[in-house]
Amino acid sequence: MIGRKLSERLAKDGGLHGDKIGELVLHDVVERSPPPAPFKVKTTASDLSAPGEAEKLVAERPELIFHLAAIVSGEAEADFDKGYRINLDGTRLLFDAIRKVGDGYRPRVVFTSSIAVFGAPFPDAIGDEFLSAPLTSYGTQKAIDELLLADYSRRGFFDGVGLRLPTICVRPGKPNRAASGFFSGTIREPLAGQDALLPVPKSVRHWFASPRAAIGFLLHAARMDTVQLGARRSLTMPGVSATVGEQIEALRRAAGDAAVRRIREEPDATIMRIVEGWPRNFDARRAVALGFRADASFDDIIRIHREDELGQKTPAPQRGRG
Amino acid sequence: MIGRKLSERLAKDGGLHGDKIGELVLHDVVERSPPPAPFKVKTTASDLSAPGEAEKLVAERPELIFHLAAIVSGEAEADFDKGYRINLDGTRLLFDAIRKVGDGYRPRVVFTSSIAVFGAPFPDAIGDEFLSAPLTSYGTQKAIDELLLADYSRRGFFDGVGLRLPTICVRPGKPNRAASGFFSGTIREPLAGQDALLPVPKSVRHWFASPRAAIGFLLHAARMDTVQLGARRSLTMPGVSATVGEQIEALRRAAGDAAVRRIREEPDATIMRIVEGWPRNFDARRAVALGFRADASFDDIIRIHREDELGQKTPAPQRGRG
Repeated sequence: MIGRKLSERLAKDGGLHGDKIGELVLHDVVERSPPPAPFKVKTTASDLSAPGEAEKLVAERPELIFHLAAIVSGEAEADFDKGYRINLDGTRLLFDAIRKVGDGYRPRVVFTSSIAVFGAPFPDAIGDEFLSAPLTSYGTQKAIDELLLADYSRRGFFDGVGLRLPTICVRPGKPNRAASGFFSGTIREPLAGQDALLPVPKSVRHWFASPRAAIGFLLHAARMDTVQLGARRSLTMPGVSATVGEQIEALRRAAGDAAVRRIREEPDATIMRIVEGWPRNFDARRAVALGFRADASFDDIIRIHREDELGQKTPAPQRGRG
Repeated sequence: MIGRKLSERLAKDGGLHGDKIGELVLHDVVERSPPPAPFKVKTTASDLSAPGEAEKLVAERPELIFHLAAIVSGEAEADFDKGYRINLDGTRLLFDAIRKVGDGYRPRVVFTSSIAVFGAPFPDAIGDEFLSAPLTSYGTQKAIDELLLADYSRRGFFDGVGLRLPTICVRPGKPNRAASGFFSGTIREPLAGQDALLPVPKSVRHWFASPRAAIGFLLHAARMDTVQLGARRSLTMPGVSATVGEQIEALRRAAGDAAVRRIREEPDATIMRIVEGWPRNFDARRAVALGFRADASFDDIIRIHREDELGQKTPAPQRGRG
């Protein structure tokens, strides 16, 4: 989803911060249809964790690589081997393929990590020096990838930036197997006139960014001055901290009581156990100082969903707490 | 060195905290001679990172595994591939071999990590929630191993404890390729009537434990109640924080001016650059609360070296700052 939105944005802009794009290569495990673009777009499909595939991807020496691919949290927890193979080995194979090009090749690598690298117990707001103690295999794999990104960057093999994305909300399209799916589902489904299940209590607090904000993070990371990062190459992105209850009140402000009545509470012990270990709030001051910008409120997150996904022009919302 | 001292201690004690030992298997990349022991000792040699070797080691289902093997920091920095192969892949292969035994097999795994998982900039004393941001490939590999240890323990594949050992001082025997080698050399060589090089300024502060204290940590980790660890399976061990200047003054108190005159300052830019990124001081309160005990002072560290390595009974030292 992020990959699709990113390529659509690059196609629409025609370049990156004013620099013309020569060619865009979209790689995924299944072939994706390319967006119409004012530059050449090539699509390829393969399993990045299969031997030799990463080498093919870097053979043409792209200047900029966005590495977004991952098995989501629920699936990485359900299938231990697959999670490590895709989320750890696939990433390491890509990094090694870049390293082995040698000959002065040193691309910018923008890697999407996750706030799942953090695990409870937490302080009220997690700062930039708080340890990575993940409570899922997915979070473990992302934390390992961050360590590799930093070491390979320090060694000069590439110029890496890791972005710990907040949970993306409202995620468009169908539900996926991420344990965090309900955060989007309880907004997206009611706005589309459909029912949604809420598997956790309304008191659950979490950390969000709209897809539009996430694409903004990626584009900023592609061109920022990485000297300012020093050896700590991964950054917690700024976001909106909101409880499920606050999300629902923002939905009520946006779409009324009828939309809220579409949400049915149906506690799910497995999801609750996973979500309990997740962070709730951050002090992302390093990323803010480096120019990354979050959504203004959860009302804004809903407004952006309606504009970008539902084609609805909405009035500027009243700012709620969320 | 730690492995040898640990097996000698187990042989001398005849058991572990009063539990009789049935069999001790010593594995290394080269065959080691077993210590005389009141229980069966088997020695094996292989490259743990070669396919199938880890499986052989766990085939007899040892109840307790000490995983100490590693390429040291200087070598891991000089040989990128070898460092990752031994320090990351070797460890992961061992962890996976344990996992694949299945059938309720869940040994205690005591893993030696390192304070090299931390990288500057630091607070005055590094607490238990400070991030792992290593500045060497060795530190990166150990930090990754810690993440794997925690995830495999959380999944129930084994019951892991990671110990971030202080720099071991005074390390007996010949110098090795560790960048930290001079910390021991500047004490060990003068006590043996030999010259020693000091490649860093006397103001350099670092964090130390004697070999005797380190063996104490390993034995405690082998039998501690891991429920108290929760999901955070790696602990910074308590130690002695001392500057090189304080070390030298402790040497003077122990062996006089003649010993100190054996130390020749010869700055080495490579070692200084590595050491500059290393931590200086810790607040290891979690480990202390869990019963791990450090040396009392740097004078004690020198006294222990003289007792354990040189067979010298020394009077209780005057306590210096170091």
